[in-house]
Amino acid sequence: MFSALGVDYGTNSVRALVVDCATGAELGSAVVDYPSGTQGILLDKNDHHLARQSPSDYLHGLERAIRAALAQAAGKPGFSPSGLIGIGVDTTGSSPLPVDASNVPLALDPKWSRNLAAQCWLWKDHTSYQEAAEITKLAAKHRPEYIAKCGNTYSSEWFWSKIWRCLKVAPDVFDATFSWVELCDYIPSVLAGVTDPSQIKRGICAAGHKALFSDEWGGLPDREFLELLDPLLAALRDRLYDEAHDATVSAGSLCEAWAKKLGLPAGIPIAIGAFDVHFGAIGSGVKEGVLVKAIGTSTCDCAVVNAGKKIADIPGICGIVKGAILPGFYGIEAGQSAVGDIFKWWVEGVCEGNAAAHRKLEEDAAAAKPGQSGLLALDWNNGNRTILVDPLLTGLLVGQTLYTTRAEIYRALIEATAFGARAIIERIEQYGVPVTGVVCCGGIAEKNKLLMQIYADVIGSRIEIAGSSQACALGSAVVATVLAGSKKGGYDTFPEAQARMTKLNPVSYTPDPVRKKTYDELYRIYRQLHDAFGGQTGAVPLGSVMKDLIQLKQKVSA
Amino acid sequence: MFSALGVDYGTNSVRALVVDCATGAELGSAVVDYPSGTQGILLDKNDHHLARQSPSDYLHGLERAIRAALAQAAGKPGFSPSGLIGIGVDTTGSSPLPVDASNVPLALDPKWSRNLAAQCWLWKDHTSYQEAAEITKLAAKHRPEYIAKCGNTYSSEWFWSKIWRCLKVAPDVFDATFSWVELCDYIPSVLAGVTDPSQIKRGICAAGHKALFSDEWGGLPDREFLELLDPLLAALRDRLYDEAHDATVSAGSLCEAWAKKLGLPAGIPIAIGAFDVHFGAIGSGVKEGVLVKAIGTSTCDCAVVNAGKKIADIPGICGIVKGAILPGFYGIEAGQSAVGDIFKWWVEGVCEGNAAAHRKLEEDAAAAKPGQSGLLALDWNNGNRTILVDPLLTGLLVGQTLYTTRAEIYRALIEATAFGARAIIERIEQYGVPVTGVVCCGGIAEKNKLLMQIYADVIGSRIEIAGSSQACALGSAVVATVLAGSKKGGYDTFPEAQARMTKLNPVSYTPDPVRKKTYDELYRIYRQLHDAFGGQTGAVPLGSVMKDLIQLKQKVSA
Repeated sequence: MFSALGVDYGTNSVRALVVDCATGAELGSAVVDYPSGTQGILLDKNDHHLARQSPSDYLHGLERAIRAALAQAAGKPGFSPSGLIGIGVDTTGSSPLPVDASNVPLALDPKWSRNLAAQCWLWKDHTSYQEAAEITKLAAKHRPEYIAKCGNTYSSEWFWSKIWRCLKVAPDVFDATFSWVELCDYIPSVLAGVTDPSQIKRGICAAGHKALFSDEWGGLPDREFLELLDPLLAALRDRLYDEAHDATVSAGSLCEAWAKKLGLPAGIPIAIGAFDVHFGAIGSGVKEGVLVKAIGTSTCDCAVVNAGKKIADIPGICGIVKGAILPGFYGIEAGQSAVGDIFKWWVEGVCEGNAAAHRKLEEDAAAAKPGQSGLLALDWNNGNRTILVDPLLTGLLVGQTLYTTRAEIYRALIEATAFGARAIIERIEQYGVPVTGVVCCGGIAEKNKLLMQIYADVIGSRIEIAGSSQACALGSAVVATVLAGSKKGGYDTFPEAQARMTKLNPVSYTPDPVRKKTYDELYRIYRQLHDAFGGQTGAVPLGSVMKDLIQLKQKVSA
Repeated sequence: MFSALGVDYGTNSVRALVVDCATGAELGSAVVDYPSGTQGILLDKNDHHLARQSPSDYLHGLERAIRAALAQAAGKPGFSPSGLIGIGVDTTGSSPLPVDASNVPLALDPKWSRNLAAQCWLWKDHTSYQEAAEITKLAAKHRPEYIAKCGNTYSSEWFWSKIWRCLKVAPDVFDATFSWVELCDYIPSVLAGVTDPSQIKRGICAAGHKALFSDEWGGLPDREFLELLDPLLAALRDRLYDEAHDATVSAGSLCEAWAKKLGLPAGIPIAIGAFDVHFGAIGSGVKEGVLVKAIGTSTCDCAVVNAGKKIADIPGICGIVKGAILPGFYGIEAGQSAVGDIFKWWVEGVCEGNAAAHRKLEEDAAAAKPGQSGLLALDWNNGNRTILVDPLLTGLLVGQTLYTTRAEIYRALIEATAFGARAIIERIEQYGVPVTGVVCCGGIAEKNKLLMQIYADVIGSRIEIAGSSQACALGSAVVATVLAGSKKGGYDTFPEAQARMTKLNPVSYTPDPVRKKTYDELYRIYRQLHDAFGGQTGAVPLGSVMKDLIQLKQKVSA
């Protein structure tokens, strides 16, 4: 039996998954929570924009998760470590971390281990919003082509914003850093035993989506542009990289040291790393016309368009990068800054409820009809990633009476995220990217039936669920299997590999025409609030918002 | 010892208070909760606008509360029932109830006792918002003078809206009704043994503020106008009243039957009834220049201006009625539709907390600085009474992040009600009514120190607290004492009676200049939202709201 290993770094934990290359069947799986901070995240109570992670948590989790998954696989008939033909890695991103000249994270040095700036700057860290705005401004003036493919807005969640911020607020950390590495490039480099940052194989997914890397302008932003930001960033450029690769290239092979730690033979090929959702899209069966939505703490939407076609720049979209998902295709990324995180905030943070309370809320919320609560929310508690690209936006709830319940607010928050999802689909369709099907993956998509039905009703399209609960890790395994190729027991193409190794869940959600009609009306009001508070348009008349919600409430309650 | 009895009908309970006429000192006091419905209110789960009350609860409470208060007073040296020189009554309003030709509430007849339309239509019932809008429209066209003194808007909380609504939705109840009586007129008529509705002495407070009664146009609205609403309302006019009285007139004297029930001598003079807050203003020492705010489930603001002066019509104010508070003065009434109710909704309804949880929230909220949460709310969960006069408006909360706490939201809701209070004061000052001092009364004013300090900081004025916890009942007793006059052991003028019988609490609240400055900035943003969602102006640009709140947050946190 040939098998492949996928490793998936999420926001709160890391998963390892061993799958059968013939069927995609799970042979072993393990999850390890990051031990540090609040659910694995290092926070600053004076700045809710800050979110860092400890690199030692990553290494701790890497070893334990893989060993546990392999131990489980070892019990399966036919499995043998010698049949493991490849390792794939996906992570959150943009989550860059500073390393020294030996490719060791600064944070592992006791000198820096307690310095928040020396940790990994987690994707959801929004401290660098001023830097992002400045990069957007400078690029618009001097290098408009740099940001044309990422919706004309550079984000505070991305590589250069974060590094520039570090340079400003923690110059000592910046000075001590040799290079900055995306987590998705760092983990493969660790497994491959890379001890020189210049030897790290960087992936086009992170480079193209977050670091303004493109062959069109010869790689990373040029020195002249970076000097406009800070001469020290221009100097850093030389210690970064000139090439970035898609999934046809290998990141190296398993080194002796990690082979020993993991109980595996050395030399197993390691795939180029990418972001979780990009490989999750592969594990969910992404192909042209199918939008894959990974619904987790935040949401990421992925679509692919054949690279032979001409593709328009799409305002407000996170990025369009050739090879970022499937080789030979443009990968299109969009997303919402918070989805599961908003529900978690409401249920655990405000209502102080546990898992049982969450189920009760879902039950109560499911009993209501769309529009019946008279509530409407904006899903911006963590800013808006797509289509407004503004990390400073905040949440809003309107329509409360003296009888509004926590379950009604919970439902309004789900609906808000569904409206945000619809805004993304409408935007990419408007620019010529067809969306004929939607496949959702992630725990929320599998477990929260109310949410999925609301998404189907709001989006107005049938929604499928990925067949694997670990679509990202499975996608990483698929990438590793294709990298190995048919001669080594894998596959030579992605469609072949996806056909054999991925499947859909038998459960799917079909829009109800009556609910969809109500949601069309609510979505119109949502867009009024969205445009007014998003500042996209000038003055939007909002005097009718509360009345329109009441009218809708009366109509649906009648 | 001469004593007086004040009876105060609140939203959830009735209180009786026996006081010493020489000092205002409390001799006996008792509260009886209304037994029916949800905390005394009959609700309809399909219509959150509906709020009714059972007249039998009123009678049940009247007897028990007075007997218990008298029993307590009986233990005090010098007290004797024969020294009781008067009875005053105040109630919520506009709370009209339908009675038959014998002045018996329809709801006491088993035939109607379960019919919600046959009950008392509690002040906070907002079911008749369409009727209110129609009355406003017709008056603006045909009788602009009718609504010039009530801010050019007739409210869904008021007499004619409610009766017209009853006629539309429950014509059988309307047909069976001989007359409609405000609760504040009904209770004195019960005590006086009035069995013919045409003999009820109606008070100018309810008549002038809620029923469009004015001597300027010969009493109630004329038949021709009422016919525009419905000919049946024009016919009802004949069974209502032609005269309405201020506190110089008596409503009758204690009848034999009720004297027996209460254990009092028959014949004690009963004062004209008025709304709770109007008499509460008297009990709090209202005089020209002093605004009295009664802070309870909702808030009512009262001011007086010498009737010898010319007074402008004030847009958005509930009413300006000569004699409604003190004889010889215009009474000005304004208010917020929900204050305590909003906190109750948040703490009990959403957070599902008890009294201890409420104290914890107050503690946590008190630890924060103004502006620090980045939150801003509109205080419209029960509509907006002053200055927008729109019962359909709903609540709004903006600025939530993933770290927003329930205590921060609680504080934002308090601040929202403070901003609403400031909007009222600014409006009446703008129209020439001086506000040189503010006196607050009610349980919230006495107990919630955080709220009072926020009010002082937001309003920017020192705030005093009424000396009596039962300012309304005390005010009713003061009115009864002045009605009795000095010859019977009372006083001949209100200033004399107020000087002897009312006092201020030693605790008062002074604005902090730093906090006031932050609140000035927050109030500016509040008004942006207020004007936009209140629909008073056309399109208001709101794109900066979330950013302005974040900037303020950063400034105050620095």
